[in-house]
Amino acid sequence: MTLPSIDDTHDQTRSSWVESANGHSSFPLQNLPLGMFTLAGASTPRAGVAIGDSVVDLAALAQAGLLPEAAPMLDGDPAANALLGAAPEVRSAVRRRLCDLLDAGKPASDAARKRAGEFLHDASACRMLVPARIGSYSDFNAGIFHSARGGMRRGRSREEALLPNYRHIPIGYHGRASSVCVSDTPVRRPNGQFRLPDADAPVFGPSRKLDFELELGIWLGRNTELGEPVSIEEAATHIAGYSLLNDWSARDIQSWESERLGPFLGKSFGTTVSPWVITPEALAPFRLPAFERSGTDPRPLPYLLDEEDQRQGSLDLAFEVWLRPAGANEAVRISHSHARHLYWTPAQIVAHQASNGCNLRAGDLLGTGTITGPGHDNFGTFLDAIDAQHPVVRAGAAERTFLHDGDELTLTAHARREGFATIGFGHCRGAVVPAAPTKYRTA
Amino acid sequence: MTLPSIDDTHDQTRSSWVESANGHSSFPLQNLPLGMFTLAGASTPRAGVAIGDSVVDLAALAQAGLLPEAAPMLDGDPAANALLGAAPEVRSAVRRRLCDLLDAGKPASDAARKRAGEFLHDASACRMLVPARIGSYSDFNAGIFHSARGGMRRGRSREEALLPNYRHIPIGYHGRASSVCVSDTPVRRPNGQFRLPDADAPVFGPSRKLDFELELGIWLGRNTELGEPVSIEEAATHIAGYSLLNDWSARDIQSWESERLGPFLGKSFGTTVSPWVITPEALAPFRLPAFERSGTDPRPLPYLLDEEDQRQGSLDLAFEVWLRPAGANEAVRISHSHARHLYWTPAQIVAHQASNGCNLRAGDLLGTGTITGPGHDNFGTFLDAIDAQHPVVRAGAAERTFLHDGDELTLTAHARREGFATIGFGHCRGAVVPAAPTKYRTA
Repeated sequence: MTLPSIDDTHDQTRSSWVESANGHSSFPLQNLPLGMFTLAGASTPRAGVAIGDSVVDLAALAQAGLLPEAAPMLDGDPAANALLGAAPEVRSAVRRRLCDLLDAGKPASDAARKRAGEFLHDASACRMLVPARIGSYSDFNAGIFHSARGGMRRGRSREEALLPNYRHIPIGYHGRASSVCVSDTPVRRPNGQFRLPDADAPVFGPSRKLDFELELGIWLGRNTELGEPVSIEEAATHIAGYSLLNDWSARDIQSWESERLGPFLGKSFGTTVSPWVITPEALAPFRLPAFERSGTDPRPLPYLLDEEDQRQGSLDLAFEVWLRPAGANEAVRISHSHARHLYWTPAQIVAHQASNGCNLRAGDLLGTGTITGPGHDNFGTFLDAIDAQHPVVRAGAAERTFLHDGDELTLTAHARREGFATIGFGHCRGAVVPAAPTKYRTA
Repeated sequence: MTLPSIDDTHDQTRSSWVESANGHSSFPLQNLPLGMFTLAGASTPRAGVAIGDSVVDLAALAQAGLLPEAAPMLDGDPAANALLGAAPEVRSAVRRRLCDLLDAGKPASDAARKRAGEFLHDASACRMLVPARIGSYSDFNAGIFHSARGGMRRGRSREEALLPNYRHIPIGYHGRASSVCVSDTPVRRPNGQFRLPDADAPVFGPSRKLDFELELGIWLGRNTELGEPVSIEEAATHIAGYSLLNDWSARDIQSWESERLGPFLGKSFGTTVSPWVITPEALAPFRLPAFERSGTDPRPLPYLLDEEDQRQGSLDLAFEVWLRPAGANEAVRISHSHARHLYWTPAQIVAHQASNGCNLRAGDLLGTGTITGPGHDNFGTFLDAIDAQHPVVRAGAAERTFLHDGDELTLTAHARREGFATIGFGHCRGAVVPAAPTKYRTA
C-alpha cells in the first residue's frame, strides 16, 4: 500500500491570492477538490477545482497553457471520469501545479493571476453536478455501531448484536447508480409498497418512515479488468477521492421488500452526494490507524490485511448532521460522528469489492455505510437515534422520528489537525418534497 | 398499456435476399434484433442488426441514405443507447424500413441489394459487444418455481415455501453493471470468502459452488426523470427489447455474505448477456396471458395491475440450457424452461422498478430472475436440479452438482408459433476458466 505523503502542498503557511480561500474556507489552497459544474445558461459540463468561494475551470486553465498535466484528461468523455482515473502520480502533479498557480507567494502564480478572469468563476454562478458519470455504485455496511444497534433493534443481545459474518467481511450490496444526485437536489418522498403494523396485506402509498444515512462516499480511480482482483497493498491507489453521501432510506418500503435479497426501492429513489471529490493527497495529514479490534475479534483474512493500512488506513474526519425542520428558518445540529467508527478501512472495502475479479472503473462510487458512533448523539440515521430512553430527536422546537416533508437535512465533514489547514468537504444537502400524487394509492 | 401489434412485418411468407436468413436461421427477416459490434481490426463500436448469418451496419446504411429513420440516433453516444431509447413508434418505423430493404420481393430492396457490400458483414467477422452502455442493472426474482424450491431447501413446507412478500411484490435487488459481459466472454471462477461446512471461521479461495442462472434480460428504452414513476399502463413502452442473461452465481460466497443485505460478490464476477436485443415488435405474435394465479393468491396492488398486461403481458418463449462438460466435444441439453413460469410480467417489473420515482435510462438492464419450471428437467440453475432423488445432473458421461473449470454453458431461447416465423435469441454462452492465482488463498 502506498498512501500519499505529506509534502509542501500541505504547508499551512501557504495562502492563496484568491482571498476567500484563506481563513475559514472549506476549500483552502491545501484542499483543491475536483468537481463538475455548468455555468449559468450553459449546458456543457466542465471540470473544476474549488478554491475558496471560487471554482477554477480546468479546461480554461489548460487552454491557457497553465495546466499541461491535466490537458490530456480534459479531452476525456466525460472529463471527470478521466480525471478520477488518472494515476496517483498524475493527480499529485496536477495538485502541485494548481497549488503553485493559486499560491499568493509563488512566481508561477503571476501568469495565473493575470488571466484569472478567464478561468475563475464565482461558485455562486456555477451549478454543481454529480462529480462523475457513475458506472456502478455499491454500498457497504462498515459502520459497526450502526450494525450493532440494528441487531439489538431486532432483539439480539448486545454481545450477539452483530451477525456472524460481520467481523470477517466488509458486507456490501449493489446500489442504484441512476438515482445518485448532487447536493441541493430535492428528494421526493417515495411511494411504495409496505405493510402497516398488524396488517396481513401490504398497501401502496407515500413512505411514512423516510430516513437519512450519513455515509462517506469513496470515488474510484484507475480501471481494472474483469477477472483481475486488486490486492490490499494496492487498494488505496484505486481511490481517487471522497465525498459525503446521504443514502436516503424509506424504512417501511425497505423492511417489506428486503427479505431475502436486500434493500431495493427503499434506497433507490435518491442518493445525495456532495459535489466535491476530496483527494487522498489533500487528506494525507489526516490518517488514523484502522479500527481497533477487541481481543476476541477475528483477525481479518490476509486479502484484507496490510500493515500500512492497519497503521494509517482510516481517516481523521469529523461529521456533522444538521436538520432544518419544515417551516424553521435555521438548521440545528442534531448529531456528530467520525470516520473512525468504520470497522473497515476504505482500502479494505476496495480490496474486498474487487476480490472476486469484479472490475472497477473510474467514477465508480462506494458508500461506506451509515457512520453511527457509540454515543447517543452520534447517530448517522434516525433509526439509531430512537430508543426507549429517546423517543424523538429534537431540532429546536421540532421533534422527529422520521423526516417530514419540507425538512432539509445537511451533512458536513471536516478534517482538522493542529499545524495543518482544515480541509472541508462542503455540503451534502437535500430537502424533502412531498410524494408524487398517484392514482394507485391505497394507504 | 400498448403492446405492439402484429402487422405485415410478421408475415411469414416474406423472405430475405440475404439467403441465410431464410429456413432455420434464428434471425429471419421477421426478427431484426439490435446489437453492437466491432469489425476485425477495428475498435469503434458500430450498431448493427442481425439478418441470417450477416450483420447489417446501420450507420453505413444510413450514410447510403437508406435508413433515414435511424440516422439521428446513430450520432448518439453511444449509438446503442440512443437506438434503445427511441420512442416505440420510431423503433417500429426502423423495423418496417429494414424489413422492406432486406425483403427479397420488395422494390425498396433493389437499392439495398446493390449496395449490400457496403453495409453487410459476415457475422463471423464481427465481434459482438454488450448491446448498450449499461447505466444501472437490477435483478429480480420473478421465477416462482425457483423461489419456491429455494424456500423448501431452507426447510419450509411446500405450502409455506414462498415468503410472505413474494406474491405481493416483484422482489428485486441491484446488480453490478461493470461486470456484465457479452456471450463468449470466458467466466473466471471467483475467489472469495466463504465458510466451509461445520467451520466457525471463513476461508478465502476459489469458489467451490459455481452455478449458472437462466434469466431473461429486459433492456430499457425511454428515459424517465428522477421522481417520476412509470404507470403499469405505460410500462411496456419503456421496454426496448429482450436478451438472454446468465447470472453466474458462486453459491458459497453468496450464502456467507448475503446476511442481511443480499447477494453481492457471489454475483458480481460476471453476468453474461446474449448480444442481440430482440425487440417487442418482433415478439408481438408471441404474447401470453400473465401467470395464472391461484384462487388464494392475492390480487396484485393497483399499481401492478393492468387489464391488457394481464391478458397478454407474458411471453411465449422457450429456453434451453446446454452444457459441454470440460473435455467433451459436444454440448448436451440438460434443461428446458419457459417464460410463462415468471410470476410477474416484464411490465409489472418495470412499473415496480420505477414506482418509487427511481429514474430509468435507455440501456438499463433488468434481469427477471431464474426461470425454473415445475418439472425436474425445467431447472434454471443447478441449485434447483439437485434434491434427494436427483443427486447429480448428467450431461453425457459427466455428472455435475456445480460447474467445473472448462465447462461451457449455453442458454438459448426461441419464440415459436404456428403461422409465424420462429424468432431466435442467439446464444448466451460462457466457459469457466480457473480462478486467478492468489497469494492470499487460505482454502
